[in-house]
Amino acid sequence: MAGSIYGKLFRITTWGESHGKGVGVVIDGCPAGLALSEEDVQAYLDRRKPGRSKYSTPRKEDDAVEILSGVFEGKTTGTPISMVVMNQTQRSSDYSEIASYYRPGHADYTFDEKYGFRDYRGGGRSSGRETIGRVAAGAVAAKLLQEFGVEILTYTRSIGPVEIDYSRFDKAEIAGNSLYMPDAKAAEQAGEYIEQMMKDHDSVGGMAECIVTGMPTGIGETVFDKLDANLARAVMSIGAVKGFEIGDGMAVSKAIGSENNDGFAMKDGKAAKLTNHSGGILGGMSDGSPIVLRAAFKPTPSILHEQKTVNKNGEDITVSIKGRHDPIIVPRAVVVVESMVALTLIDALMENMTARVDRMAEFYQRIRE
Amino acid sequence: MAGSIYGKLFRITTWGESHGKGVGVVIDGCPAGLALSEEDVQAYLDRRKPGRSKYSTPRKEDDAVEILSGVFEGKTTGTPISMVVMNQTQRSSDYSEIASYYRPGHADYTFDEKYGFRDYRGGGRSSGRETIGRVAAGAVAAKLLQEFGVEILTYTRSIGPVEIDYSRFDKAEIAGNSLYMPDAKAAEQAGEYIEQMMKDHDSVGGMAECIVTGMPTGIGETVFDKLDANLARAVMSIGAVKGFEIGDGMAVSKAIGSENNDGFAMKDGKAAKLTNHSGGILGGMSDGSPIVLRAAFKPTPSILHEQKTVNKNGEDITVSIKGRHDPIIVPRAVVVVESMVALTLIDALMENMTARVDRMAEFYQRIRE
Amino acid sequence: MAGSIYGKLFRITTWGESHGKGVGVVIDGCPAGLALSEEDVQAYLDRRKPGRSKYSTPRKEDDAVEILSGVFEGKTTGTPISMVVMNQTQRSSDYSEIASYYRPGHADYTFDEKYGFRDYRGGGRSSGRETIGRVAAGAVAAKLLQEFGVEILTYTRSIGPVEIDYSRFDKAEIAGNSLYMPDAKAAEQAGEYIEQMMKDHDSVGGMAECIVTGMPTGIGETVFDKLDANLARAVMSIGAVKGFEIGDGMAVSKAIGSENNDGFAMKDGKAAKLTNHSGGILGGMSDGSPIVLRAAFKPTPSILHEQKTVNKNGEDITVSIKGRHDPIIVPRAVVVVESMVALTLIDALMENMTARVDRMAEFYQRIRE
Amino acid sequence: MAGSIYGKLFRITTWGESHGKGVGVVIDGCPAGLALSEEDVQAYLDRRKPGRSKYSTPRKEDDAVEILSGVFEGKTTGTPISMVVMNQTQRSSDYSEIASYYRPGHADYTFDEKYGFRDYRGGGRSSGRETIGRVAAGAVAAKLLQEFGVEILTYTRSIGPVEIDYSRFDKAEIAGNSLYMPDAKAAEQAGEYIEQMMKDHDSVGGMAECIVTGMPTGIGETVFDKLDANLARAVMSIGAVKGFEIGDGMAVSKAIGSENNDGFAMKDGKAAKLTNHSGGILGGMSDGSPIVLRAAFKPTPSILHEQKTVNKNGEDITVSIKGRHDPIIVPRAVVVVESMVALTLIDALMENMTARVDRMAEFYQRIRE
Repeated sequence: MAGSIYGKLFRITTWGESHGKGVGVVIDGCPAGLALSEEDVQAYLDRRKPGRSKYSTPRKEDDAVEILSGVFEGKTTGTPISMVVMNQTQRSSDYSEIASYYRPGHADYTFDEKYGFRDYRGGGRSSGRETIGRVAAGAVAAKLLQEFGVEILTYTRSIGPVEIDYSRFDKAEIAGNSLYMPDAKAAEQAGEYIEQMMKDHDSVGGMAECIVTGMPTGIGETVFDKLDANLARAVMSIGAVKGFEIGDGMAVSKAIGSENNDGFAMKDGKAAKLTNHSGGILGGMSDGSPIVLRAAFKPTPSILHEQKTVNKNGEDITVSIKGRHDPIIVPRAVVVVESMVALTLIDALMENMTARVDRMAEFYQRIRE
Repeated sequence: MAGSIYGKLFRITTWGESHGKGVGVVIDGCPAGLALSEEDVQAYLDRRKPGRSKYSTPRKEDDAVEILSGVFEGKTTGTPISMVVMNQTQRSSDYSEIASYYRPGHADYTFDEKYGFRDYRGGGRSSGRETIGRVAAGAVAAKLLQEFGVEILTYTRSIGPVEIDYSRFDKAEIAGNSLYMPDAKAAEQAGEYIEQMMKDHDSVGGMAECIVTGMPTGIGETVFDKLDANLARAVMSIGAVKGFEIGDGMAVSKAIGSENNDGFAMKDGKAAKLTNHSGGILGGMSDGSPIVLRAAFKPTPSILHEQKTVNKNGEDITVSIKGRHDPIIVPRAVVVVESMVALTLIDALMENMTARVDRMAEFYQRIRE
Repeated sequence: MAGSIYGKLFRITTWGESHGKGVGVVIDGCPAGLALSEEDVQAYLDRRKPGRSKYSTPRKEDDAVEILSGVFEGKTTGTPISMVVMNQTQRSSDYSEIASYYRPGHADYTFDEKYGFRDYRGGGRSSGRETIGRVAAGAVAAKLLQEFGVEILTYTRSIGPVEIDYSRFDKAEIAGNSLYMPDAKAAEQAGEYIEQMMKDHDSVGGMAECIVTGMPTGIGETVFDKLDANLARAVMSIGAVKGFEIGDGMAVSKAIGSENNDGFAMKDGKAAKLTNHSGGILGGMSDGSPIVLRAAFKPTPSILHEQKTVNKNGEDITVSIKGRHDPIIVPRAVVVVESMVALTLIDALMENMTARVDRMAEFYQRIRE
Repeated sequence: MAGSIYGKLFRITTWGESHGKGVGVVIDGCPAGLALSEEDVQAYLDRRKPGRSKYSTPRKEDDAVEILSGVFEGKTTGTPISMVVMNQTQRSSDYSEIASYYRPGHADYTFDEKYGFRDYRGGGRSSGRETIGRVAAGAVAAKLLQEFGVEILTYTRSIGPVEIDYSRFDKAEIAGNSLYMPDAKAAEQAGEYIEQMMKDHDSVGGMAECIVTGMPTGIGETVFDKLDANLARAVMSIGAVKGFEIGDGMAVSKAIGSENNDGFAMKDGKAAKLTNHSGGILGGMSDGSPIVLRAAFKPTPSILHEQKTVNKNGEDITVSIKGRHDPIIVPRAVVVVESMVALTLIDALMENMTARVDRMAEFYQRIRE
């Protein structure tokens, strides 16, 4: 199987199963000279840790990252950066039952169809733990982006029917509540909604939103490697995401041109858009406005609620998935979305360096001097 | 610039500007032995032709495709298939005015920022004519898919506020109306809506939907190359698409697990899903149900309606885009969506051949026999 | 089949068969702003034209290149550059006989084994005409390299037993004789040798040599994408090349360390190598010395001399290949070697721009200013 | 930096420095169902271990491999296989001196030029330990190849002036002497030669040869991805390789067509080559004969012999490289060559599965049954 490599110039390879020895990532193509420590990466990983709130699973996972290569005397050397998080426990016994049937909403059935068998322990490769490698690499990409003046803000936009109110938008609040919502009141309402669903043995969906500021203009390639197309793939590759929007998103299908087009006006001696229906991307390239994107996450598929499925003997059965499962995926996935966005942006910035002959010539002229 | 190559094993390279000498595509990686003629490709191209209805631009473009290589005695040889559509006229004069300012909603500004200048004739590379190469290649991919039992159905799902009614869904009707809607009544209402907007010098958005049947199960790779992630990139790379959904799409953010999960039951001796909220993909792999996806297209950005923008002299101006422009993008884009889906599916089917040792061993055993 | 795409950032796709409608190439990833005309490309193509000397085939082929896209007002725009050379005649009749058997030394047998059949007209895709696309793209790459101060000199180093004498090395002489040798006397001797072999209905091998000057230091990636490794692939991908050397090449196997190592000494305030056994590459990166590489070409396989082979009926037969074939491949291949080297170097220079955080940060800082 | 990823479908990413925490590799794209244990991989790694003979460095390195993912119940699962060899000791102190100057024949200078600084401990990423990841992955590739009937035999062909005598060729002898030569007498003579050079504080070059049997015909892609071109890149990417030959190699430059062409004759009802000057590849595809290739390795650059170089202060100095270094690279590199060949062949076999429509259709027909 392929599929665990991402990127063209800043390329990452992730590996690891939920209940194997560990999970990790190798970054190939990180520029030399970036100050990087395990603490930088750990800070990102801690944002996806379970046990952070009453709505996430109470399992204790330390998920301590170790950098095995590519950093020397506190700086990246230009060689591959290998990072690993060893699994603390390998609890195969907890999962013996699910080996015998297909969990609805999970990849059990498709794994078996593709490969003939599967590592059924805790979801194996399709477990949420797969995202640890993404986030560790995303931490490095995000640190690089800061060197170039690019910042990413990601948060929970909605949980079930509860949406944030932008008039109450408070960036500081995101880390302040366990649901990563920038609106304390919405977070409280969402919490109540989740508790009700948990009592019903059910789970809920939600939406993450991401805003990128500081991108230079003209980043992204035309035709197939449009920046929004690559962001879509990046975000849709996260398990449980079923929809992706940039700017006005699906709503453009009901819009009219005179309202959807963003006019231009001069501002500080440069052309600037008057509105941002485009979500910061025009013709596949960054247009100077903030990049705004959203991802819709389905409800956690593992629920106590009774469900119909079939077992290995080809019998119709009814199951109830036990174990410690989050009733909502979004809050812990916020940092995964941010990581995938960071990885995509850094790659686009790298490729863009070769867009013009004059800039390339100047670059090499300065090296020779 | 990069960005005009798509695919991993079935790789296409498109080229050409709106008002250059022509547009085309080269396919590298098409298997040998497929019966292929220019008529096969032309049939696809004709579906994106302008002038097909009163709602599309009255320009006469013949867009006759010529196959220059890779086919011998009516069959593909395994070598690159080069296809070209020469532009009939090169009307630079029509477009001299737009060289002087940035059209709102277009890529004029971002092209200039990225490359320092642009081929401003008719949008250059970011014109809708860029999709001719995609569709020519998509025709070949779709023909290949038929050899493996895979069928794709694509149509207009909505135009502005007018959605099709699935109780009136009629596949035969799609080619029967100029809006490619599978519901004659909705097509009529949508037509009225478009006419009203045209009177207002405005344009409208819409949504395309695509249904794939016959895919074997287990196709798609896990993690970054999930089938839905690659489909998202493929479709989002089409100009004007701002949102993408698979299965229940954005609505999953408001769903609950017990309703969103698709249960399984035995059917004809095999496990089968009872519902299809997943849209035919679980864990990034095809799950045996029809693959269902949607794309939201923004309204045509070129409108007669007055808009604010800036010119090359750095002055704020007001413009009104003249010329023959469709008031709606979706109908002509339906075949482009279908093409991008076909290209993505054939690539996934190819890569999947290497998923299992036993199947590879059997494959080579048969070759040796 | 795949295989007709080359490069990572400066990517080319070649297409076309010997007796199809034409041959061509699409370049994706050429930076914007390079002055480029058809004359620039034609000058390169003319170097591989047949009919230039009595030792090459007397066929008249004009091979006039046409640029179909990617150039506007005399400069590259950053979009794909499509170039085509239409075949003047499509003489299928000349080649009808060879459809019935496998020519020794040709790819007839392997094509049939891989694809089940082949376009047998003039060798189809494995004809020497396949290199036209490479050379057209190489002309663009070489022009780009000049913008960055990189020059490539390629010539015939030996023909059969006749080697050039470096004490007589005369760069101007290369274009002065039909064998592209930088030594008039060697060219004369080689000419006599070729004539003798032609009388014997036989063909001869030879060696091309290439010297690159002006490369910045540190270009090339470590491990798998070493500059010499990529140059080896590039040059070995030319039909008839059976051996590749960098610097001292195969002879290093008999060398001792104290003689093979290149010492360093300060020169003009910089470290510089005292000798160049390495051929300008250390650890896969350019080391400041000229890059020196060689390729060994086998004798033209199409010969009048009788040879044993088998036909489609499974019978052992004896054949004599008629038609107009060069008795030596090297002279016309010199520009092909140069093209593949140019394509490889420009790609390496592009990728190298992302090697250091500080240089990337400076690059984007200047764009924002 | 990029450069540490190899392969298209069977893709490996290697990582690690000589004196970092460890070295390793991740394989993405290994088919599911291959029986694989750490012992399988360790057997390959042991062939590159130092300390095996008096001619290799007496350092004790256990190099025990651990498989961290991708294997479940003794079989590959189709997910990434992560393998690691932790470094036993991290002896930075041994190497403090070499941080101050450029070792002749090493990548110290080019690393500094490219990245601005380097991990100078033991050569860092350009150490021979970098090959551990290649060999671990090569062990998996070789095991896969056996499932498809492909065998690879690699050995030392020459050391300095001492070549093996094919009339004494004894496959069993390869593992019987510490120089991996298939000729005991040549091994003895080579040993004497090495000892003499060691007394002179010098090192020696040599040549490795590799023979592949059992490849199906028609494997490899035409044009740029010719099987021999990809093998050339694979082998030339190994540090210290300066020349590469396939079949008759460099000697073809002096050959004549009537002798260099391999005729065909019927054998067991199939066409077969009468000779093998081509080295098993015609037109970039396997031709049914054994694939024969050679690589020339330069002498070990680290020698006690005095050499001229410069230090960080820009002073010309004379150095003598102390420490435990092999006087010859080839014997330990034999398994690295074999690994790179195996990785290249498995990738080619995978890609070839998509060469024909009829075979693809049959493949999917059988899956549906």
